[in-house]
Amino acid sequence: MLRKTGFFFDELCFWHISGLSHVLTFPVGGWVQPPNGAGHAESPETKRRMKSLMDVSGLSHSLQLRGAEPLDDATLRLVHTEEYIQRFKSVSDNGGGILDSEAPIGQGSYEIAKLSAGLTYAAVKAVLQGELDNAYSLSRPPGHHCLPDQAMGFCFLANIALAIEHAKEQLGVGRVAVIDWDVHHGNGTQHIFWKRDDVLTISLHQDGCYPEGYSGEEDIGAGKGEGFNINIPLMAGAGHNSYLYAMDQVVLPALQRYQPELIIIACGYDTNAFDPLARMQLHSDSFREMTRKVQQAADELCHGKLVIVHEGGVFRSLCTFLWVSCHGGIKRYTH
Amino acid sequence: MLRKTGFFFDELCFWHISGLSHVLTFPVGGWVQPPNGAGHAESPETKRRMKSLMDVSGLSHSLQLRGAEPLDDATLRLVHTEEYIQRFKSVSDNGGGILDSEAPIGQGSYEIAKLSAGLTYAAVKAVLQGELDNAYSLSRPPGHHCLPDQAMGFCFLANIALAIEHAKEQLGVGRVAVIDWDVHHGNGTQHIFWKRDDVLTISLHQDGCYPEGYSGEEDIGAGKGEGFNINIPLMAGAGHNSYLYAMDQVVLPALQRYQPELIIIACGYDTNAFDPLARMQLHSDSFREMTRKVQQAADELCHGKLVIVHEGGVFRSLCTFLWVSCHGGIKRYTH
Amino acid sequence: MLRKTGFFFDELCFWHISGLSHVLTFPVGGWVQPPNGAGHAESPETKRRMKSLMDVSGLSHSLQLRGAEPLDDATLRLVHTEEYIQRFKSVSDNGGGILDSEAPIGQGSYEIAKLSAGLTYAAVKAVLQGELDNAYSLSRPPGHHCLPDQAMGFCFLANIALAIEHAKEQLGVGRVAVIDWDVHHGNGTQHIFWKRDDVLTISLHQDGCYPEGYSGEEDIGAGKGEGFNINIPLMAGAGHNSYLYAMDQVVLPALQRYQPELIIIACGYDTNAFDPLARMQLHSDSFREMTRKVQQAADELCHGKLVIVHEGGVFRSLCTFLWVSCHGGIKRYTH
Amino acid sequence: MLRKTGFFFDELCFWHISGLSHVLTFPVGGWVQPPNGAGHAESPETKRRMKSLMDVSGLSHSLQLRGAEPLDDATLRLVHTEEYIQRFKSVSDNGGGILDSEAPIGQGSYEIAKLSAGLTYAAVKAVLQGELDNAYSLSRPPGHHCLPDQAMGFCFLANIALAIEHAKEQLGVGRVAVIDWDVHHGNGTQHIFWKRDDVLTISLHQDGCYPEGYSGEEDIGAGKGEGFNINIPLMAGAGHNSYLYAMDQVVLPALQRYQPELIIIACGYDTNAFDPLARMQLHSDSFREMTRKVQQAADELCHGKLVIVHEGGVFRSLCTFLWVSCHGGIKRYTH
Repeated sequence: MLRKTGFFFDELCFWHISGLSHVLTFPVGGWVQPPNGAGHAESPETKRRMKSLMDVSGLSHSLQLRGAEPLDDATLRLVHTEEYIQRFKSVSDNGGGILDSEAPIGQGSYEIAKLSAGLTYAAVKAVLQGELDNAYSLSRPPGHHCLPDQAMGFCFLANIALAIEHAKEQLGVGRVAVIDWDVHHGNGTQHIFWKRDDVLTISLHQDGCYPEGYSGEEDIGAGKGEGFNINIPLMAGAGHNSYLYAMDQVVLPALQRYQPELIIIACGYDTNAFDPLARMQLHSDSFREMTRKVQQAADELCHGKLVIVHEGGVFRSLCTFLWVSCHGGIKRYTH
Repeated sequence: MLRKTGFFFDELCFWHISGLSHVLTFPVGGWVQPPNGAGHAESPETKRRMKSLMDVSGLSHSLQLRGAEPLDDATLRLVHTEEYIQRFKSVSDNGGGILDSEAPIGQGSYEIAKLSAGLTYAAVKAVLQGELDNAYSLSRPPGHHCLPDQAMGFCFLANIALAIEHAKEQLGVGRVAVIDWDVHHGNGTQHIFWKRDDVLTISLHQDGCYPEGYSGEEDIGAGKGEGFNINIPLMAGAGHNSYLYAMDQVVLPALQRYQPELIIIACGYDTNAFDPLARMQLHSDSFREMTRKVQQAADELCHGKLVIVHEGGVFRSLCTFLWVSCHGGIKRYTH
Repeated sequence: MLRKTGFFFDELCFWHISGLSHVLTFPVGGWVQPPNGAGHAESPETKRRMKSLMDVSGLSHSLQLRGAEPLDDATLRLVHTEEYIQRFKSVSDNGGGILDSEAPIGQGSYEIAKLSAGLTYAAVKAVLQGELDNAYSLSRPPGHHCLPDQAMGFCFLANIALAIEHAKEQLGVGRVAVIDWDVHHGNGTQHIFWKRDDVLTISLHQDGCYPEGYSGEEDIGAGKGEGFNINIPLMAGAGHNSYLYAMDQVVLPALQRYQPELIIIACGYDTNAFDPLARMQLHSDSFREMTRKVQQAADELCHGKLVIVHEGGVFRSLCTFLWVSCHGGIKRYTH
Repeated sequence: MLRKTGFFFDELCFWHISGLSHVLTFPVGGWVQPPNGAGHAESPETKRRMKSLMDVSGLSHSLQLRGAEPLDDATLRLVHTEEYIQRFKSVSDNGGGILDSEAPIGQGSYEIAKLSAGLTYAAVKAVLQGELDNAYSLSRPPGHHCLPDQAMGFCFLANIALAIEHAKEQLGVGRVAVIDWDVHHGNGTQHIFWKRDDVLTISLHQDGCYPEGYSGEEDIGAGKGEGFNINIPLMAGAGHNSYLYAMDQVVLPALQRYQPELIIIACGYDTNAFDPLARMQLHSDSFREMTRKVQQAADELCHGKLVIVHEGGVFRSLCTFLWVSCHGGIKRYTH
């Protein structure tokens, strides 16, 4: 079977920047020297290079390339507070600045963030409606750290949570499972669905990395949501086998129990062996194999309905190999 | 005769940045895509490379390398308004931003600007007191566009005007001549000394370049200052011979008439043939020859007392050749 | 009338690099310090940003986006010597290096250059066959300096000459007029068609810029080609009015006399007011107006058949405005 | 007691580059897209920023800043083969290229490498002769991977081995202990002194990182050298406590047993928590504490004679904090 796979992106997502100068994640000033070239860890290049490699390798030709409309303001309120939305818009309109901790933005980032969330929703909608079998959304800025009233970790809108809430409202989807394998904890998604059983949230992440000092094993949700939030903290240095073991022992069984109607992967590549913001050791085969396992579960459980949403990672260009590898089997990089 | 030449600089001058992202001089936003690497035209690299080349070529060894104290706030008030000083400090303390048109700053630029002006004053003082024969001040940010109450053209404090006023107050210097061969008009210096005859201001610049549309031939000062302000607008495309002709026909005779006690050159390298912000065609020999002519005049008129203060230009690394050439005869680049 | 306009490009064109490190056009070594970020004047960014702006502004949606096959080796021999082709391939296969003066290449540049020339041919073919009304080829590396047996000025294959020769062979096109308004002389195209009257070559360029010291007014072709090669050297500093005057007085009358069946523009943006490698002062309206004039001539003379081929310029991002302006009327930049 | 500490460096060390374009450690070509700005992992910026921070923080003022003469060719032969020396010189003279695996160089890297080694020797000499109490050599390119006949891992001359051999010959030093805490294995130093008991070599490194797959616990030297080579492979993800434990349990006792006359640290900062080429989690306090322990041992065992030689790491600017911290107590960064 040849699947019809969508790839949702927009050139404008590569135009979002942090408004102030940073070196990796540290704002310039005091003893932090201005950057030469590289700058903020979450730079446009980190994600543009994925699309460039897809084009050059020919992968783009086997995908359905799509754009999307930005989410409108009313939809943002499904997750975010009015005060936060206005504050975000205001800083964005006035040349950018520091929105919250680890959350610098540039002029116009508000509009780009709404487009980024719009891409996620469009991917979810197309898969739920059967127009596509599965889909990838190259959303930027990312979303999984963002809280209803606060930006965090380069995330300004809760892309996945917004897409789920909007899809529930518009399309009536029931149980949704979110697997977050970005190397940092998916704290925003966890928070938003903490007391609900209609969304299962699972996060694999480096123990104690970001948010700083956070582990999470004991956080299982509350009220109706108890048991519907799963955290799998992994030791710094963990690699291919650790992740596959966690998938087999925890993630896949949880999916089986939950019987989702849609699976979403919050996909970070910052688990790769060259990322500066974490200390894991995944490589191309890891992403390929993890994706294969989840797609197989989706095939069994929910007619293959899987949406992958881009989160952090992909620093510079190296790990762009990873994703292409895991989807297209093009090249393998081990270190 | 071997002159004792001072070179005033501070690593911190290379840490000043424009607070917001720019491409050349355009702020990011709307249809201005964020930069990749290069960014603002007046970047740290533009001037650091001069010092690096001086070190590698060995030129540094024949110069007296000096630092300086920043100017204190009281001294700033010799030229600038209290309101402007406070506004500059406030934006600088709060993460940087757009101070005025063409005047973006970063966190801490206020302190760096005071140091930059301090380097200029230290150079002037050492030469006036006979401790050094002549001197170069690698001041950054530059100063020649800055007005008493407004930043302009990447200039935030009027380095040369401040040094002159402070030297008049502290050291009692009389007639000072300022020759500004930065490719843009030295409008700040002109403005500050417009009605005075104790400072002769001469500007050679590209006609109509910056400030936009400005020529200046008819601007000769007013009141007591009438005749003590000279503008020499040159056509875009002018090169070596045009500049030397203007030096011989206008600048040197004016110095002869004025009989200064100190000559200061506001020295931009943006007249070189590769600069993106202007369209002139100077090269190493041009700077060497122009400097030679002014030094000779200083020898005749004021015991050789000459201070060169760095203004704009030196985009990327190319024209760092120019200065080294004109001083040390190391290498010649013609295009 | 709404024209059907093609835009030919390939992501791979943005992957060609100079193999060795350069600053602007100077190879690192001796007293040329390695670059920080910016590097060679003809970098991928210079042209990628045009495509990015087209996407973000929406211009891409009104164009027919196309790719192309690379030219095959046999076609290269229509213009280039076997020895040169082999030498180019060999350096490209072996990690890159200096091919000729001002002609550094990287690993794989040979394949990218064949694709770049292929894009030009595909544009010419589609227009000649009436599939498109007119077309733009974002060829990179460029071609107008390249000689049959020698690379020059970042040009490795004679894109336009190859497209013309191939079209003559395959499609039987007769008289072709090439207008080269890149700021540097179109010496390669001139050389190749020097003794022929079936291709009219016209070059507007900065007098004495590149090739160094070259003017060209007296070069009019030879033999059968006498009178079919026109050079219009313009003084450094020339701007909008100078170019339009030259178009009206020389270029358009020459087109009228020649009655071409196809018009090709070798289009450089290095005539813009911010380019580091030349000293002209064009802006958006200049490109818009020049293009309008030539399209009008094409409408009168050859059923509107016009192909624009990208040559040099577009340093950094500024002048990406220019092209979009001249085609889409989006924004005007004057300086 | 206030120690007299030397800091040996040369601006030219920041001018060494890899001759061909790389992304991190991967040469451009095939599906490796050219870099935008960042490029090779071992870039000039990685080490220049340390010196810049030292200047801005004021640390430079409390150190003796020194330069050095490059090692001459005869001295290189104390460690390297004539064939390798000639090969290195030849590639360097001819525009640079790939010297060996993971060993790209630029034009002139040969001369810079001899200067880099010269800085190490000058530091060793000044400390052995009592002119300085201890010293730091900011050698670049680094040296600890380099073999007598082969470049490896961005290392082209065996800086430390050369300094030891030259010091033995010139100054008659006896037992020297080398502690290599660069995150990669100090394979070059180990190899050169494998069968000797007059140099104790100890390497702490990430297990299996580089050289790829290497651990080393079982490698203890041979012949007279048996027992005088110690490897301490640490698991990926190891942090502050792991390193201090290894220091206390293995390194310091070994120093006590060996009673060296001089201690040299091969100091990499690639053990820091942001380095892209390894997966360790050290921070400022780690470097400060490890240095304190070794200095204390040096005080007890060899009149405080300690020389720190810069090896890998310091990607971008982050970990420049580390070194300044560990020496000057300026700032602490934990993640």
